[in-house]
Amino acid sequence: MNLAQILFAPRAVALVGASGDAAKNTARPQRYLVKHGYGGRIAPINASRTDVLGLNSYRSLKEVPFDVDHAFIMVEDVESALEDCGAKGVPLACVFSDGFADAGGEGSARQARLVTRARALGVRLLGPNSMGMINLTGRVALSANAVLEADVPPAGSTSIVSQSGTMLGTVLSRGAARGLGFSKLLSVGNEADLGVGELVELLAADPETRIILLFLETVRDAARLAAGARAAHAAGKPVVAYKLGRSKLGARLARSHTGALAGEDRALDAYFRDCGIVRVDLLETLIEIGPLLADHRPPDHGIAPDRAPRVAVVTNTGGGAASVVDRLGMTGIETVAPGSDAPIVDLTMGRKGMTYGAVLGEMLDFPGCDAVLAVVGSSSHSYPQRAMEPILAAGTAARRSAKPLGVFLTPQADRALALLARAGIAAFRTPEACADAFRAYLSWRTPRASNDARPLDWPEGVPARGRLDEMQAMTLFASLGVPVVEAAVAQAPDYEHGLPYPVALKILSPDIAHKSEAGGVILGIASREAFAGKVQSLAAKGEPLLVQRMAAGLGEAIIGYRDDPIVGPLVMVGAGGILAELYDDVALGLAPVDEAGAREMIRQVKGFAVLRGYRGLPQGDLEALARALAAISRLALLAGRPVREAEANPVIVQRDGVVAVDALAIMKEE
Amino acid sequence: MNLAQILFAPRAVALVGASGDAAKNTARPQRYLVKHGYGGRIAPINASRTDVLGLNSYRSLKEVPFDVDHAFIMVEDVESALEDCGAKGVPLACVFSDGFADAGGEGSARQARLVTRARALGVRLLGPNSMGMINLTGRVALSANAVLEADVPPAGSTSIVSQSGTMLGTVLSRGAARGLGFSKLLSVGNEADLGVGELVELLAADPETRIILLFLETVRDAARLAAGARAAHAAGKPVVAYKLGRSKLGARLARSHTGALAGEDRALDAYFRDCGIVRVDLLETLIEIGPLLADHRPPDHGIAPDRAPRVAVVTNTGGGAASVVDRLGMTGIETVAPGSDAPIVDLTMGRKGMTYGAVLGEMLDFPGCDAVLAVVGSSSHSYPQRAMEPILAAGTAARRSAKPLGVFLTPQADRALALLARAGIAAFRTPEACADAFRAYLSWRTPRASNDARPLDWPEGVPARGRLDEMQAMTLFASLGVPVVEAAVAQAPDYEHGLPYPVALKILSPDIAHKSEAGGVILGIASREAFAGKVQSLAAKGEPLLVQRMAAGLGEAIIGYRDDPIVGPLVMVGAGGILAELYDDVALGLAPVDEAGAREMIRQVKGFAVLRGYRGLPQGDLEALARALAAISRLALLAGRPVREAEANPVIVQRDGVVAVDALAIMKEE
Repeated sequence: MNLAQILFAPRAVALVGASGDAAKNTARPQRYLVKHGYGGRIAPINASRTDVLGLNSYRSLKEVPFDVDHAFIMVEDVESALEDCGAKGVPLACVFSDGFADAGGEGSARQARLVTRARALGVRLLGPNSMGMINLTGRVALSANAVLEADVPPAGSTSIVSQSGTMLGTVLSRGAARGLGFSKLLSVGNEADLGVGELVELLAADPETRIILLFLETVRDAARLAAGARAAHAAGKPVVAYKLGRSKLGARLARSHTGALAGEDRALDAYFRDCGIVRVDLLETLIEIGPLLADHRPPDHGIAPDRAPRVAVVTNTGGGAASVVDRLGMTGIETVAPGSDAPIVDLTMGRKGMTYGAVLGEMLDFPGCDAVLAVVGSSSHSYPQRAMEPILAAGTAARRSAKPLGVFLTPQADRALALLARAGIAAFRTPEACADAFRAYLSWRTPRASNDARPLDWPEGVPARGRLDEMQAMTLFASLGVPVVEAAVAQAPDYEHGLPYPVALKILSPDIAHKSEAGGVILGIASREAFAGKVQSLAAKGEPLLVQRMAAGLGEAIIGYRDDPIVGPLVMVGAGGILAELYDDVALGLAPVDEAGAREMIRQVKGFAVLRGYRGLPQGDLEALARALAAISRLALLAGRPVREAEANPVIVQRDGVVAVDALAIMKEE
Repeated sequence: MNLAQILFAPRAVALVGASGDAAKNTARPQRYLVKHGYGGRIAPINASRTDVLGLNSYRSLKEVPFDVDHAFIMVEDVESALEDCGAKGVPLACVFSDGFADAGGEGSARQARLVTRARALGVRLLGPNSMGMINLTGRVALSANAVLEADVPPAGSTSIVSQSGTMLGTVLSRGAARGLGFSKLLSVGNEADLGVGELVELLAADPETRIILLFLETVRDAARLAAGARAAHAAGKPVVAYKLGRSKLGARLARSHTGALAGEDRALDAYFRDCGIVRVDLLETLIEIGPLLADHRPPDHGIAPDRAPRVAVVTNTGGGAASVVDRLGMTGIETVAPGSDAPIVDLTMGRKGMTYGAVLGEMLDFPGCDAVLAVVGSSSHSYPQRAMEPILAAGTAARRSAKPLGVFLTPQADRALALLARAGIAAFRTPEACADAFRAYLSWRTPRASNDARPLDWPEGVPARGRLDEMQAMTLFASLGVPVVEAAVAQAPDYEHGLPYPVALKILSPDIAHKSEAGGVILGIASREAFAGKVQSLAAKGEPLLVQRMAAGLGEAIIGYRDDPIVGPLVMVGAGGILAELYDDVALGLAPVDEAGAREMIRQVKGFAVLRGYRGLPQGDLEALARALAAISRLALLAGRPVREAEANPVIVQRDGVVAVDALAIMKEE
């Protein structure tokens, strides 16, 4: 038995702490296993009974007379139960009990001890604080989620890994109401051992899974998840994430109930994009988007970065279509109609007489669009079969097309939704989830090849710990290809330097973070005479000083690098001055980026409009800025990745070239 | 019979163009009237039959032997049908037929002729292009919307006015699935005569209506709708709007299928706020928000403008609550828990043992919150009655409280939704609609008293047509109380002026819009000698010139005024320089604003951070800016409102005071 088998399809399960009182939560897993048709053996473990709800039970795991693949632990004394698993040779324990990292403080230490002991015993752990695993295709409902009180939900080829146990019920019940079936549903709890990334790897290899959904409040192992996402991509399986903690309040809440950092949302956005994970904004998009992506590949190669993605829309309700189209427009998507300059094909106007099916077929063949949207009004509620017929017919064509087809139904139309679900056609309940799904599809990227560049050498003469002084940071940046301003360290007593005037003069202490605000920078020194006077004022005790040529340009930028504790190396570019901060006008990417990636980041920064010929202003060399950005991002390639954060601020953007005039770099090692 | 009676409860209706073929769309109104229990008389009008679907029919309206209150016109020759209405004395015609303003061009002219004739005949019109009217409390289903094929939907006390006929079906069917009932549903079509505003007035007076919903793609008569909204407020009835055309694409689409401008979205936002209309962002919020607002008043007097609104949250699912809380956080709302500094009360953690009901009661009594949110997980799906009990109990308390209570159910939980609906408790299907509804409630404002200030006199010596020159514009602004820089018009031959140096010198032509770019502005003239030389360069032919004292300050702002074709007079404030444009960093309000309103607008402009003491910079006099903004907004009070647009750009913000150094004003009359 491999891990996937013992996790998804155990031949026998033990329920440690199973209650004989059917009303108790700890009786649920047994009731649900039976109710939903589990075909393997069940061993309830209960210290004070010999029979639990009609099944033979055992005082201890060790007494079970057959091999157990998977133990579900509901008792407070998880540690003893784990020892029993080890003694019995149970290879996997799902820990439902909480009071570990979820409780913070001592709970985290308790969890660390538990994992250490589990590794020593050779037992894999799901949880603690896991709601369990539901395998609908294999009929294993090993969970305490009350959603399983309901009838057997439909099975399908979508699987979900969730950091919230409740969400298994949310996804399952909402899917069932739309006729959308699932295969595996996994609650990872605290991810003490088995984490989201490893489970995605298992699902990437699972023949019953075609789509992988993630409900996330944090990312605990970004590298492993990235590997899982790449494996899924290689297997042709889209991975979709709904990730909370986008607001400060949400991040605080996530931390308070998972014990983990939510991470900076924009960094996670860059991370998801980088590893080909489709990120959705709305909860129901997560449930509904699957069929839009199934059998499709990321569309990034078909959409040039400088044009808006285009959706062709057909509708038999003007207002209904408008509610989606307005929202598509809010995300920068355009709509098109074949053979017309109207924004959509409205069958109630102008093109009366054309049939729904004929227009849909025309759209799927239309090279001018990237995806096709059909909107249907009240008929989908009142005559579902008849109203869906042309769409079901087009669905077959859509599966052969590179373009996905999605449908928005304006009324409550459960039967029509189920017809579409059965045919594998993406159908959306709300205009917002519909628009969100199209946006998510259209911004889906092929995962970037994982980086196997040879590590770069650390430049000679630059320390690899602590905070570098500005000259050292400049040397580091220059070694990677960032153009830096001509500079020299001038020493007492003469402070000789070979730079032509005008120059800037700066104190050279790595300990002063804001040199300008501390009065440690003098700009525009025009002559040798002026220089001598200024040296006096900055270097009262004969400290060495940094002399730089003055550089002028058309505008300023900031470029930066950070080794993020959650997603790893990141590179940043923003407009200079106060704009980056005041308007949060920066773009982030995973480092390293190549020049094309850097160009795309620069395109996202609004403030650079002034360097792109805004109001007839002269244009700055944003190509050179892209090269500088790619260069600073190579900090991620330095052997051992010693740099924690670095920044060139400002970088002067000139008509021809760019030059960094200030540099900062802080190592991880103190 | 008054208008409300003939519209909502006609004693007899005529169906002009009723088909005898039950499968045809034109047979629907008759079928639906009968199916849904209409108690009045029905007169099908069909030129070639004497019997339509079992009812006596008539060749012409004039042949109907009884009085008809309301005619539903489905024929192409609307004009003849209208004449018949006039001849027969039918006081109201709902025109289902299209081909009027909705078709553009000649259709608009046709519509204008139709309205003129209807007025002459004394016939009120609903439509053209109207899907009709459904009165569920009165059992009048006078509509062609296919949603009426379904069983009789529940009646309730919410009414809706929609510019999309399809949306009647959308709202009705989605409401029915949740147990939410409606009273009147009105499709206004092209609003040739009866418009949204007049219908809101009727509903404000309708004893069966407690909540008024609006589905809008445009606002055709803002003043009338504002009056309707104020009447509804006075009657204690909240008005909620979902308005499309927020994106350029959406606005273009709205125009293409309604023939009307969508209007600038931000201006409409200011307009809705001003007249106390609650604006929702998501379609389902429109359907679900009613009970959150019913019996409540706008909370604006309870929430100081400088603090974030606060929601108290209780949950039995961490992940489920997080999905709403994260979204609340994205709109700047905070969450609180009574007696704790945790962001929420999570009954699965820490506060185990506390009952749901007890916590809810505590929250409703907690003075530190403005609203209460309950989140319920899978139990709402599996044990709806038991899971809803504490909430139903709290609902009674909530009705007595000034604070609204809303509920988010994480799974598909139709039975629980229906239980809550029946109890009048707001329940939400998605975390996003839930957060949107709380945001909408918390930003709901008491309608501003309509402005009955005495009109202001036009300042002497300033022309009231065309484009003013800068001196005239300055005089106009100064007359309203805007501080303007000291200035004089200097004339040939000597160009004498009494201003102290340094001064600025400008050409004084109203025809040159961008004086600086045209080289018509010289700043910082330090002396009389320099002045003489500059005069030569600007006034080659002896034209008069404008001389202004130079003014320095800490930053720049822009203040403006515009008489918007849709919402009327607007006032605007933005950060100076390129920020307003590049980052769209401006705030809009309906003019006139008072100083408190001006202060609130200024608070919305991010770029003013640099004048609020950002990074230790000196603070600018934003109070004086608020006074200047209130002053320029008084352009709306000038008798006859002659000004089309005006702008002071820049206004120099000083440590103590502000001063406008450039002024522009364009009259409506050429």
